[in-house]
Amino acid sequence: MSEVTATDLYEVTMALSYLREDMRAPATFSLFVRDLPPGRGFLVAAGLEPALDRLSRFRVGHPDVEEFAEALRRPVEDLEPLHGLFFEGQVRAVPEGRLVFAGEPLLEVTAPLPQAQLVETCLLSFLCHQTAVASKAARCVLAAAGRPLVDFSLRRTHGPEAGMQAARLCALVGFAGTSNIAAAHRYDIPAVGTMAHSYIETFASEERAFRAFARTHPGPVTLLVDTYDTDRGVVTAARVLEGLGLGPGCAIRLDSGDLGALARRARAVLDEAGLREVRIVASGGLDEYGVDRLVREGAPIDVFAVGTKVGTAADAPYLDAAYKLVEYDGRPVMKLSSAKVTAPGPKQVFRGPGLRDVIGLADDEPPEGTEPLLRTVMRDGRRTKPPDTLDAARARFEADVAALPEEARSIGRPAPPLPAVSSRLAALTAAVRRRVEARALEEGDGR
Amino acid sequence: MSEVTATDLYEVTMALSYLREDMRAPATFSLFVRDLPPGRGFLVAAGLEPALDRLSRFRVGHPDVEEFAEALRRPVEDLEPLHGLFFEGQVRAVPEGRLVFAGEPLLEVTAPLPQAQLVETCLLSFLCHQTAVASKAARCVLAAAGRPLVDFSLRRTHGPEAGMQAARLCALVGFAGTSNIAAAHRYDIPAVGTMAHSYIETFASEERAFRAFARTHPGPVTLLVDTYDTDRGVVTAARVLEGLGLGPGCAIRLDSGDLGALARRARAVLDEAGLREVRIVASGGLDEYGVDRLVREGAPIDVFAVGTKVGTAADAPYLDAAYKLVEYDGRPVMKLSSAKVTAPGPKQVFRGPGLRDVIGLADDEPPEGTEPLLRTVMRDGRRTKPPDTLDAARARFEADVAALPEEARSIGRPAPPLPAVSSRLAALTAAVRRRVEARALEEGDGR
Repeated sequence: MSEVTATDLYEVTMALSYLREDMRAPATFSLFVRDLPPGRGFLVAAGLEPALDRLSRFRVGHPDVEEFAEALRRPVEDLEPLHGLFFEGQVRAVPEGRLVFAGEPLLEVTAPLPQAQLVETCLLSFLCHQTAVASKAARCVLAAAGRPLVDFSLRRTHGPEAGMQAARLCALVGFAGTSNIAAAHRYDIPAVGTMAHSYIETFASEERAFRAFARTHPGPVTLLVDTYDTDRGVVTAARVLEGLGLGPGCAIRLDSGDLGALARRARAVLDEAGLREVRIVASGGLDEYGVDRLVREGAPIDVFAVGTKVGTAADAPYLDAAYKLVEYDGRPVMKLSSAKVTAPGPKQVFRGPGLRDVIGLADDEPPEGTEPLLRTVMRDGRRTKPPDTLDAARARFEADVAALPEEARSIGRPAPPLPAVSSRLAALTAAVRRRVEARALEEGDGR
Repeated sequence: MSEVTATDLYEVTMALSYLREDMRAPATFSLFVRDLPPGRGFLVAAGLEPALDRLSRFRVGHPDVEEFAEALRRPVEDLEPLHGLFFEGQVRAVPEGRLVFAGEPLLEVTAPLPQAQLVETCLLSFLCHQTAVASKAARCVLAAAGRPLVDFSLRRTHGPEAGMQAARLCALVGFAGTSNIAAAHRYDIPAVGTMAHSYIETFASEERAFRAFARTHPGPVTLLVDTYDTDRGVVTAARVLEGLGLGPGCAIRLDSGDLGALARRARAVLDEAGLREVRIVASGGLDEYGVDRLVREGAPIDVFAVGTKVGTAADAPYLDAAYKLVEYDGRPVMKLSSAKVTAPGPKQVFRGPGLRDVIGLADDEPPEGTEPLLRTVMRDGRRTKPPDTLDAARARFEADVAALPEEARSIGRPAPPLPAVSSRLAALTAAVRRRVEARALEEGDGR
């Protein structure tokens, strides 16, 4: 798969037409999420760093031109005008980790029209999915209320590369580790993991399995106790840990059943055995709802492992995102059809205390006490600064979460803040709407 | 990302332990979906071909060993026993395109225990996600009742590689094309696509935009008519097509609003203009539910473009799948905890007429009139035959769909067939359960 041809065909038909019509004036496109999915009080901006990596390498080579021609069933010569095209535009974007809300641009591209169009699919495919997953993972962090979380999602994400991203996004919002070895290496995240039920089953008994595991892995171990009968598994694990003189750094893992009740009984057994420092890890179909319930009922669980539902953002696996043209050649534009009206013009989000945001025009005077969310991250097709770190993104996330209103933090019934709209943006929207409606009327008359 | 280290850490801790304990006897693992998600009357087996590609290349190299050691925070020497390990086992699997139901193995691996364990994450990450997406796409095919479908999902799938897979899976179940140029090239699928709203907006009028597009793309074009006022857009499109003498092969695309009502009015306008051969393409948030509603109300829509909800399998983005040890060293095994009991022993699915299936043991005598679903696709780590084609998979899909009971085809309230269990499998399950329960009891007593 070429990084350039992993695109929707219509980006190419349009870009080619723009070149042939000599329409190379600067265009600004705005990438935003129209509405938050139910069950979300905020989104976590994510995917920008990988998207900028891709953009800075974006260049149409000869093999790409050949694939374009094949797709359009036209001679290669017809597609030659696209050969050598690369991205030399400006990108303003919300840095990863910041919280964003409905209608707020995550990113704006300003570039010669054919370039700005040709990168649409790439930008959407990085930012939408990653923001969806980061937002789900962030809710788990809120639900866990300070207890560590780890990512077990790789086996259920939409392919291995999506699993790499999930591990990164979980780390971005503060997870303590991932089971994904390649992601741990690539993103410098602690790797975590223990054993599967199959491990226990291959030995003549649970106890022999635990002892063999401890032989192979000297030092602290985590023992999976629910292969046969969980309560008995806990007793066996306690006996093995005690016998080996292990304790601090060790854990048992519960992966099925009533995790809260099992954890309480397991805690009692471990404490009774003098294993107060042995921790309890819970896994098995958990997401923010399950974690929240267990935390609220006071379950003595020390670490939550979440996977499937977080790595696939299962209850909101996509976002209602758009990449919309908002200005071309200095002229603000908008789309009118149905309910999907988009506000015209390059924008900025001005963030006040308590995440009270105002969506305004990029050249609005910043309201007092606000900071602009979109920063220039690429100019003339080059990054304006070195790639961001996960630590920096996590710090931004934590600062925004600390300021998030209570109702947006709710796990059960979150209510996201509604950004205000600046008076200049409102006035421009009304003016452009009048202009566009007048033109639609003329066309309808056949003029 | 190394293909080997894109794995859960616990596969490595277990494989290492097996090697150290000299547990290299053959193990059989069974990959199956426990229950179908709500809204599914069947699953379409998918992901096998890419998974076999990966398996046949699977070999632990020195850089992998270094990543393993880093993940485990142990010296590289400790991980050396894994160096050079490759997959030399047998794989029996349901070929892509066949319909499968709850509890039926999609795939069984038999290999020396460390190998069979180490490939778990890889197999799950290919088969689960791809089966989920193929099954969603297949329901769209049923809903469209013979009208062509095209895939527009790339921008919302979980990254570009997931988009490649989505395009392939849509083609596998019979879609007519994809917007994804790279996937069209890689999998030999017709590429489709037209223009975005932004294209219209960059011109001084809708009509000028249509004319410019036709100049760049001589021959049949598809015109997007809902940027401003859809009914007027249709009139303008008809005028342009008529003026250019175009018709057959051309289309208009509706992307928002009441698609059924708009299509009816558009059809009347086009027919009135003598453009009976101009087709109507509908897109915009469609999946099998939307397509089914439009088909039932008799909307004159000729082609359905589906994207987001299909490429993310939005209402069931993951499957409740497991990779379970069912036999080790000739001894059938099972897990007992909670409700997740798994049946022991290597299995076969015997398919009778009308997709009446019996899940049995691999060495069961096939019931009369049935065919076995699992075929040997890999032996000694090598494919038993050349890679399967999409055409062959599609033919299998179509044959199984033709035999699918009506209640499983329902879009609104599908009821999947429940496979029967062979008497030998039932007897083995009962016997192994007694053995395992007896052992659990012994262990709980501390013996």
